[in-house]
Amino acid sequence: MAKPLVAVTFGDAAGIGPELVARLGASAEARNAAGMLLVGDEWVWQEAQRVAGVPVTVTRVSGFAEARHTNSDIQFLPLDTVAKTDVIPAQVTKAAGAGARAALDTCLQATQRGEVDAVCFAPLNKQALKLGGMHFEDELHYFADRLGVTNYFCEFNTLGTLWTSRISSHVPLAEVTRYITQDRIKAAARLTYETLRRAGFAAPRVGLAALNPHGGEGGTCGREEIEVIAPAAKALNDEGLPIEGPYPADTIFLKARDGKLDAIVTMYHDQGQVAVKLMGFERGVTVQGGLPVPITTPAHGTAFDIAGTGRANPTAMIQALLMAARMSQG
Amino acid sequence: MAKPLVAVTFGDAAGIGPELVARLGASAEARNAAGMLLVGDEWVWQEAQRVAGVPVTVTRVSGFAEARHTNSDIQFLPLDTVAKTDVIPAQVTKAAGAGARAALDTCLQATQRGEVDAVCFAPLNKQALKLGGMHFEDELHYFADRLGVTNYFCEFNTLGTLWTSRISSHVPLAEVTRYITQDRIKAAARLTYETLRRAGFAAPRVGLAALNPHGGEGGTCGREEIEVIAPAAKALNDEGLPIEGPYPADTIFLKARDGKLDAIVTMYHDQGQVAVKLMGFERGVTVQGGLPVPITTPAHGTAFDIAGTGRANPTAMIQALLMAARMSQG
Repeated sequence: MAKPLVAVTFGDAAGIGPELVARLGASAEARNAAGMLLVGDEWVWQEAQRVAGVPVTVTRVSGFAEARHTNSDIQFLPLDTVAKTDVIPAQVTKAAGAGARAALDTCLQATQRGEVDAVCFAPLNKQALKLGGMHFEDELHYFADRLGVTNYFCEFNTLGTLWTSRISSHVPLAEVTRYITQDRIKAAARLTYETLRRAGFAAPRVGLAALNPHGGEGGTCGREEIEVIAPAAKALNDEGLPIEGPYPADTIFLKARDGKLDAIVTMYHDQGQVAVKLMGFERGVTVQGGLPVPITTPAHGTAFDIAGTGRANPTAMIQALLMAARMSQG
Repeated sequence: MAKPLVAVTFGDAAGIGPELVARLGASAEARNAAGMLLVGDEWVWQEAQRVAGVPVTVTRVSGFAEARHTNSDIQFLPLDTVAKTDVIPAQVTKAAGAGARAALDTCLQATQRGEVDAVCFAPLNKQALKLGGMHFEDELHYFADRLGVTNYFCEFNTLGTLWTSRISSHVPLAEVTRYITQDRIKAAARLTYETLRRAGFAAPRVGLAALNPHGGEGGTCGREEIEVIAPAAKALNDEGLPIEGPYPADTIFLKARDGKLDAIVTMYHDQGQVAVKLMGFERGVTVQGGLPVPITTPAHGTAFDIAGTGRANPTAMIQALLMAARMSQG
């Protein structure tokens, strides 16, 4: 079977993304798993290799269709998305956000034409993206809009063995409870179960996290567990899906760590992210679930504090590429 | 200096609390650090030793005043708070909740008379406590009411090296944002700083956690960081307290784990508890901060799933006793 072709973008040019892409290009494991097509600005790519201290030989192509038929582990499609003079290293700028978005846009269109099999992008800065014209709560909603997705979609974070999905994501904490509905929970749990099946789990063990402290303390500290989450679990069980919970948020991750769950459906962003980052910050991967093609990215951010210093750790970027390649073949 | 006298209660009689107290009584480390006065029902204490498989010789006393003047590492003050026939092992009952509360009440009164130096209680079940007549969101609010506390108080969770406090605690997630005020943040940060000083940190490094995903993403995903938390940090700095943050919740615990912070002021229960339990579930201790006497308890719960089996791990209970003893001398 031919290796999948994965489009790779640099993310926010002011962060560690370009450096990570250079290190990814130098990874034998990544090159064995996929054909990589780097998509972005020439100056960003040159700067990336300089910061990483890793020169990477690439085959230049002029379009996606050409890349599919070129026999090379790593290719480069130059775009003109952002001027070097408009980017301030390690800072949020509208220009870097707009540039990151333009590169992704180009890749999304290529996926719709079937010219690439998956997309793996280096870290974005959401504030820059929004300044740069992305009018959605996060990039996943933007992707879903661009790709015309109408089914349930949600972000997954995975450490390989443990997966987490979310009922709500990049919304203010004050708005979280609006998202806690039986329909959303059922859709997220089904998508989680199906995604793990595709990722190779024969019988995924999926648990629902509770929303309130101590799982609502029997209804005395919040009613969502009794009125929404438990009924959703029962409905899923009646469908034949062995979804467990709700379990209190502060102990459900211990169950997962002890190997008793493969995936946790969390109710809000930090409920899962606090745990996942503690359990494996450097290898966490975000999978944009429910889209027609695999799209992945490292779970960490642009790390402006070390951008440009050549100290970025590419572990999660490499894992993200490997996951994109694996899912495009699953 | 004489050892402090710490009152110890069994917690909810249907959980692992009594077993933990028996194992605590058998701990040489605990007996060296404090004089322990066990306060509770005779039948619970007999059952505790049977389940633990650890007979503990105690000196029986008839009141707190007598205990202060008895030369014994471990004493027992029998109360009559709950009938054995009203307690269902491993289940929530009004009777067990009311009994646990009555024993604590007796100890709180003794602290006010200066007859004990601290209180350490085995795990409670909040639902049972509420059924048993505790009309507060949690036991800390109940203690504060009983002890006439009017200053700011909050629960601390500690693993010894890392301490966490909270702006809001046992409230439904939907109500958390009501608690995020500059006054509460400043009071909690000051109490955290002072409590760590008392616990022996010469220059405590205290950080504030953000409320919203990614710290509010520069105001595009929630405004509390900009409008409330950062101004509170600035006001604290102006007072001369080197409080840091706000830092995004999903990375602030990594800073702490890497030794860059001693304490984190969290905005809600599970923000801190998910992290603390992952970082050291078995040794986590809860300190009821801001009260006139040290009151501590293990951070874990009643563990109904293993109650009565003799498999409860007493590490946190022993740590809670040691912390109560240390703080009463600090």
